[in-house]
Amino acid sequence: MKIKLSELITKFGGKLVGDDIEISGIAPTDLAGPSQITFITDAKYKKDLSECKASAIIIAENNAEGVDFNKIITDNPYWYFSQVSQLFYPRKEVKAGIKATVLVGGNSIIESNPAIADYVIIGDNVTIGKNCQIHPHVVIGDNVVIGDNVYIYPNATIYDNVKIGHGCVFHSGVVLGSDGFGNAADKSKHWNRIPQIGGVIIGNNVDIGANTTVDCGTFTPTIIEDGVVIDNLVQIAHNVLIGAHSAIAACVGIAGSAKIGRHCQLGGGCGITGHVQIADYTVVGAATGISKSITKPDLYFAAYPFSTFKEWAKNAVHVRNLHAMYEKLRTMEHQIKKLVGESNVNN
Amino acid sequence: MKIKLSELITKFGGKLVGDDIEISGIAPTDLAGPSQITFITDAKYKKDLSECKASAIIIAENNAEGVDFNKIITDNPYWYFSQVSQLFYPRKEVKAGIKATVLVGGNSIIESNPAIADYVIIGDNVTIGKNCQIHPHVVIGDNVVIGDNVYIYPNATIYDNVKIGHGCVFHSGVVLGSDGFGNAADKSKHWNRIPQIGGVIIGNNVDIGANTTVDCGTFTPTIIEDGVVIDNLVQIAHNVLIGAHSAIAACVGIAGSAKIGRHCQLGGGCGITGHVQIADYTVVGAATGISKSITKPDLYFAAYPFSTFKEWAKNAVHVRNLHAMYEKLRTMEHQIKKLVGESNVNN
Amino acid sequence: MKIKLSELITKFGGKLVGDDIEISGIAPTDLAGPSQITFITDAKYKKDLSECKASAIIIAENNAEGVDFNKIITDNPYWYFSQVSQLFYPRKEVKAGIKATVLVGGNSIIESNPAIADYVIIGDNVTIGKNCQIHPHVVIGDNVVIGDNVYIYPNATIYDNVKIGHGCVFHSGVVLGSDGFGNAADKSKHWNRIPQIGGVIIGNNVDIGANTTVDCGTFTPTIIEDGVVIDNLVQIAHNVLIGAHSAIAACVGIAGSAKIGRHCQLGGGCGITGHVQIADYTVVGAATGISKSITKPDLYFAAYPFSTFKEWAKNAVHVRNLHAMYEKLRTMEHQIKKLVGESNVNN
Repeated sequence: MKIKLSELITKFGGKLVGDDIEISGIAPTDLAGPSQITFITDAKYKKDLSECKASAIIIAENNAEGVDFNKIITDNPYWYFSQVSQLFYPRKEVKAGIKATVLVGGNSIIESNPAIADYVIIGDNVTIGKNCQIHPHVVIGDNVVIGDNVYIYPNATIYDNVKIGHGCVFHSGVVLGSDGFGNAADKSKHWNRIPQIGGVIIGNNVDIGANTTVDCGTFTPTIIEDGVVIDNLVQIAHNVLIGAHSAIAACVGIAGSAKIGRHCQLGGGCGITGHVQIADYTVVGAATGISKSITKPDLYFAAYPFSTFKEWAKNAVHVRNLHAMYEKLRTMEHQIKKLVGESNVNN
Repeated sequence: MKIKLSELITKFGGKLVGDDIEISGIAPTDLAGPSQITFITDAKYKKDLSECKASAIIIAENNAEGVDFNKIITDNPYWYFSQVSQLFYPRKEVKAGIKATVLVGGNSIIESNPAIADYVIIGDNVTIGKNCQIHPHVVIGDNVVIGDNVYIYPNATIYDNVKIGHGCVFHSGVVLGSDGFGNAADKSKHWNRIPQIGGVIIGNNVDIGANTTVDCGTFTPTIIEDGVVIDNLVQIAHNVLIGAHSAIAACVGIAGSAKIGRHCQLGGGCGITGHVQIADYTVVGAATGISKSITKPDLYFAAYPFSTFKEWAKNAVHVRNLHAMYEKLRTMEHQIKKLVGESNVNN
Repeated sequence: MKIKLSELITKFGGKLVGDDIEISGIAPTDLAGPSQITFITDAKYKKDLSECKASAIIIAENNAEGVDFNKIITDNPYWYFSQVSQLFYPRKEVKAGIKATVLVGGNSIIESNPAIADYVIIGDNVTIGKNCQIHPHVVIGDNVVIGDNVYIYPNATIYDNVKIGHGCVFHSGVVLGSDGFGNAADKSKHWNRIPQIGGVIIGNNVDIGANTTVDCGTFTPTIIEDGVVIDNLVQIAHNVLIGAHSAIAACVGIAGSAKIGRHCQLGGGCGITGHVQIADYTVVGAATGISKSITKPDLYFAAYPFSTFKEWAKNAVHVRNLHAMYEKLRTMEHQIKKLVGESNVNN
């Protein structure tokens, strides 16, 4: 595929500075070839352009000075890059049709232009929208609704009663709708299961990474709103709500009934306690545990600073005695106050 | 299904106060309809009852005063709710029988009333007990023993030499019996695998959540005792023992040969070092690392308190210098002691 | 199988002290029977030998004194044990051949002596080397290259464009080559996917544990070099490089573009920030977050020391006020300095 810079501008906006050349791909500055367009997202990368072989660049106005390429000037080069990249490297499609080894239950409807690969199993009373791409060995339970243009990768599992919007992508090993972790202890302190019948509702344009799990709600659904992006190995417990356009990095755990706001960003490995509420636009740092609700958006953080083990051991022993240290400090403060008083008397 | 309050009492105990009405379901106070029973587990939820449409309630004696519903009085309303909920919302069953696409190895026995779904694979010398429900795409290795009334959800994998009791539930993506992580370095510091042949033993009524992994032992089995409940994305390493009726929340990692006692509770994202022993009834908080054995049950905790990044950065720098701060404190203490002495002399 | 001690020495080196007996297996000191060989790796285990029923032992020279067994003396008993154990307990093989239910795409080559189990799916333009063992329900995408003697366990998924060397082992639920987590925000702060087309390259003799995920790179591949061993539930993000012969314990998360050196060891649950570089031979402790590059190999650590919740709460409050405590300390230091000066003047 070849496309002129002016055609990109028609599609994605921006302003042409230089020749309206034809390009055949997009790549970062160190990889781009002569027929390709590249991009930079920050002035600090301008130095990389001296060796760059690209014929054009996506760049912000305030970084464009002295950059001797054919340019598309835009406010948001990173987003612009994502659009051009999607154009050149669209998601690969499974071969169209429904393979002979696919098993579909009763009362299920598969809308136009399906691509359903071998050994896929679809339950009863399921609706699958248009242009869905379902890869091999996906299992879909009963009473599932899937919108249009949804991609589901191999070995993903969707339990009963999951509702999914349009344009979602679910990677391999994803599990949607497994039992929430609800148990009641009897008088012998044995655990008794609490049925989980609330299902899951997933909005439009939600991406979920490999081996991530989303449990169904107890009585009401677990909800993931539109445009949420979730990385690999994330746990979303029962009755969680993830607000629209939030981003969740890998290895995050969100406990039951937590409500994450819209446009939040949760860093890798962070954990959210059950039942807390996180304000819209909150950012949580990597490996940070959030144990109570956040009402004011900000960047929150809680990592123990790393050091060599030897340094750590020398310092960490005092973490267990901070209160004693504080008490000692207060005693000394009083002693000094008294001494300063006496000292003043002496003067 | 409809059932009278007196019939519930026959099944689960408790005392009827009010009319012996018939109910058709159970739900929390905000969801329960007129033909349903609800429940509260704490006095603080009594305020929610004014808007509740339920016709009956499960409640403790000491919270029952002034509650104008037909009541089942019980010591443990949460457990009672779990029982009634199981009655109304039993676990859904796969259609009975063994599907034509199921492949079963030699010398394997499947006992009465199986429900084994499409594309399930069962190895050689396997025994599967009565009334088991095995969902699509489950793979079961050789020499596996499974008790009665076990549910295995889609895309779960059971390796060779895993022994499972009665009444267990394994969710999608669960892996039981994969190799323990044992490696020996040679003189070039290259890793050489140590064979893992110990298998896994799982007791009765064990629940394991989606994408949780349980490795086989090196020479002797990894063991999960009766009544253990485990959430999603948990790692149980080789030769771990989980004592009966313990509960393990999501994203926990338990390293090799750790022994967890009975009736323990491990919070989400916590980590247990290899070879440690945890006393019965120990509770470990979320995201807490346990690096040595615990002999006295208590609630243990270790989270770094979160704050805004700005606040964190201001304080965290001192975590790396706590020993220096402590040394300074001690020097000052001596100086003050001397000054107080001199001050006394001066007086 | 029976083998003489002298034959082991021919294979693996070491020196025979005692009789050249025949053994039929290897086991730890507490499990070894009369026809077996055992091993100890440290002097502290010598006490266990009094009850040990083994007929021979693998032991280091400096621990051998007073040990009344037939002995193989070696510098590295743990490695020697791994070799003897591999000899007696080789990895079990799937039945040879390609099952009738296996589906193979166009232009794919499967080299000699394959063992490909039921319901495996192999895409287009795939090459699979000699003696590969592919378990049931594995899905392999297009343009995948797999070397010789590779084992892939049930329900693992390999996406398109993954290149794998010889002698690797991938456990159940492993996902190789899923999309890296790359998203660009538009002006409405909606996330737009960045295509991930860089693939994955995995060297020789790499082991990857159950439910671990390795994302493909954005433009260039994610790389795992020779001899790397990775435990369960690990996340390897796009464009990460894992240097040869490194070991990664369970529940680790490595963020995008991080470069881990050779011969590194990452403890369970640790996290590596994106784009950092870790020097060869670095060891990272369990649950430790590494937020910047490490240039000098050492043991690094960062765990908050655990205690009872009561103790924790008393101390943790001061973690949020360490800077104030430090400021107070400095004020007091100045006051004391002045007092000491005055005190000197007074004297």
